[in-house]
Amino acid sequence: MKWYKIFTPELKELIDSKNLKGLSLILREIHPADIADIIRELEPTERVIAFRVLDKTKIAEVFSLLDPEEEEELLRYFTEQRVKEILLEMSPDDRTQLLDELPASVVNKLLKLLPKEERDEANLLLNYPPQSAGRVMTTEYVDLRTEITVSEALEHIRKTGPDRETIYTCYAINEKRILCGVASLKDIILAKPDQKISEIMIENVFKINTTDDQEEAVKVIQKYDFLSLPVVDSENRLVGIITVDDILDIAEEEATEDFHKMAAIQLPEEKYFRSGFFKHLSGRVVWLFVLILAATISGKLLQKYSLALSSIIALAYFIPMLMGAGGNIGSQSSTLVVRALATGELTLRQWWKVLVRETCAGIVIGAVLGTTAFFIAIILLKNTMLGITVGISVTTVVAVGNLAGAATPLIFRYLRLDPAIVSAPLITTIIDVTGIIIYFEIAKRILNI
Amino acid sequence: MKWYKIFTPELKELIDSKNLKGLSLILREIHPADIADIIRELEPTERVIAFRVLDKTKIAEVFSLLDPEEEEELLRYFTEQRVKEILLEMSPDDRTQLLDELPASVVNKLLKLLPKEERDEANLLLNYPPQSAGRVMTTEYVDLRTEITVSEALEHIRKTGPDRETIYTCYAINEKRILCGVASLKDIILAKPDQKISEIMIENVFKINTTDDQEEAVKVIQKYDFLSLPVVDSENRLVGIITVDDILDIAEEEATEDFHKMAAIQLPEEKYFRSGFFKHLSGRVVWLFVLILAATISGKLLQKYSLALSSIIALAYFIPMLMGAGGNIGSQSSTLVVRALATGELTLRQWWKVLVRETCAGIVIGAVLGTTAFFIAIILLKNTMLGITVGISVTTVVAVGNLAGAATPLIFRYLRLDPAIVSAPLITTIIDVTGIIIYFEIAKRILNI
Repeated sequence: MKWYKIFTPELKELIDSKNLKGLSLILREIHPADIADIIRELEPTERVIAFRVLDKTKIAEVFSLLDPEEEEELLRYFTEQRVKEILLEMSPDDRTQLLDELPASVVNKLLKLLPKEERDEANLLLNYPPQSAGRVMTTEYVDLRTEITVSEALEHIRKTGPDRETIYTCYAINEKRILCGVASLKDIILAKPDQKISEIMIENVFKINTTDDQEEAVKVIQKYDFLSLPVVDSENRLVGIITVDDILDIAEEEATEDFHKMAAIQLPEEKYFRSGFFKHLSGRVVWLFVLILAATISGKLLQKYSLALSSIIALAYFIPMLMGAGGNIGSQSSTLVVRALATGELTLRQWWKVLVRETCAGIVIGAVLGTTAFFIAIILLKNTMLGITVGISVTTVVAVGNLAGAATPLIFRYLRLDPAIVSAPLITTIIDVTGIIIYFEIAKRILNI
Repeated sequence: MKWYKIFTPELKELIDSKNLKGLSLILREIHPADIADIIRELEPTERVIAFRVLDKTKIAEVFSLLDPEEEEELLRYFTEQRVKEILLEMSPDDRTQLLDELPASVVNKLLKLLPKEERDEANLLLNYPPQSAGRVMTTEYVDLRTEITVSEALEHIRKTGPDRETIYTCYAINEKRILCGVASLKDIILAKPDQKISEIMIENVFKINTTDDQEEAVKVIQKYDFLSLPVVDSENRLVGIITVDDILDIAEEEATEDFHKMAAIQLPEEKYFRSGFFKHLSGRVVWLFVLILAATISGKLLQKYSLALSSIIALAYFIPMLMGAGGNIGSQSSTLVVRALATGELTLRQWWKVLVRETCAGIVIGAVLGTTAFFIAIILLKNTMLGITVGISVTTVVAVGNLAGAATPLIFRYLRLDPAIVSAPLITTIIDVTGIIIYFEIAKRILNI
């Protein structure tokens, strides 16, 4: 239950009556993520009033949780001074994300508002490739020099901590900012006050490069259960961290991207309503267009078999059933393999295990569905030979379709292509063509046409 | 790169030569998650030797990262004393997970090894419903009484911290163990030593009930960026916590489950190799069987239209193209809507926005694909009227299929069913039937048959 929803009408009333004090009292008690949800329900002018009573830190937090268009719209209502305050208060990774999605002209105007240091940092972060670790990292981490003591470290954490994204994992660096080790706040608290950081740190640090794919960070954090992961440049100097809360968001986005790819959709943006109508269209129509062209082959093949088809018109009745069964089993096996590859459970080395398993599965399932199809054909047409034809065809198409669905993603991975491109629509189209050939070649032999 | 892989041959050699000291030295440097990966590559007897040199804590960590069958196999090689040690060292949530997947007879034997306190706890955790918050929580959290001071709290954390799953979020309770507030270690460290916990804690705690679905925990932690979430019983007493690292695993499992459902697969287990061959088969064949029965309707329909079909056999050539286009667009729109519902971006209230958007999208994409199909038909058959029939049919089927794909998951959600059951195969089968009716009714009118 979204309990804060009960407040929305009350909030609206407070805003309309310009009771800023009451508004401030209520909003102080509400989590930024919930305020963001409430803000979305308000009219633009009401939003500006709600923002007026929030304190600086909360404004920046709420602001970074909104969608880019909502952010852009709000920015237009704020004074330049206010915009500057918000930008400075935002954490560097949220700021990058905002600047990343705004039009270039707006970005330039905003960057000019920032002091040189923050401007340089923003420019630096924006220069890392999209979806790279550098693009999503934050520069607000705790670094500790290896030679200081535990009590000095705690003093340093107390002083700098409030501004940091996390203080629970601290990174040890030397005078050249080279990453030397990692110490959790737990280790620091449990250590003796006069121990040196170099004595308590773990030297074998898992890290990631600025140019590595963000998905790499997801895999490392998921496997080793870290709260944050250090990001280093090519000279092994510490330049940022990625925290686990961002990893959760990235993992969700990556999963959505895979869902879309597997339905032959390629959108620039994972959110349903966020991508504009025409971008949405073009992301969907490309593959469909290719696939309808590919379906010409099915048409051409049927034309080739038109003699058989016209002599026994009943053959046509089972085309949808055959295509359906082949396509469905192909979606199943390709989904199983694509997903197992994505989660890292399956590696390419195990290809033969997959193929053996799917060959067996395809034959068994094929036999079950083929027998069913045989009886359906008999009941529908009372023609045993046609029943046998349909039964054998379904069995064969299902077995072949299952194997094709399992093998194609493995081949894609071998060719260093993204296995998720092996969408259900793609597999279905491939199996359609194969299915027609199998069906009519079997029919010609059994029915002597 | 999996750097530790280079050690595997060396490790094998150390094991074979029984050089336990060298083995111990190497393994000490390797992260438990990597040791688990190495263990998987070893023979059963080698595994036992590798486990012999690990210290107690590391054994429990490595052990809980293995798959249930691997765990069960290893347990058979260990002495009773060793098994007891490992079980006691495991965190309660990992122990629940292990016991959860072992056969009942083994579980009973293992439970007898545990002291009464741990046994009661294990029994309690195993009694929560599967996939509930109670089933995945751990009981190793830091609780602080509200009336103690910050320095007392730090002392308490130093003493109990080493055994706790996390010390970064501490939960404040009163004398009845009722959850009263939350204080992060950051707040505690930054506070004055003589402040009371009740003064620095946040009283508005986000919590979850033991019987709530684990997916609820994923949503809360993802939205509010928590490191852990307290779990309370029906009387609001603190009984456990769920940590963010487990949330990452649960989110991945839930995503896999949705991927499978959307390909009409229903497996008891998310991992590809983990479910036995026959469970794997039965999880796949059920829906396929239902769908092939449903395909009988397509056959029956075509039989009804056999007069039209036999007078113009060329109509059959475009059946695969028509089914394909309809099925593909239906997979696209259903995937978009199912995923947007799953991530919480889309709520049922916005149904009309979705339907308007998808109606427009369907018409535009339908027009593009219909025009393409028109030209394909003309090129293939040089018959304008047939081209028009195919073109209009594809446009209509695509528009209808797109709307059906978007609407069905919304209807499922409205009926409180899981929208992810709206698989591509299910949508495709529905659209096949509709497509045939549309195609032949249009053909009868345009071609006067």
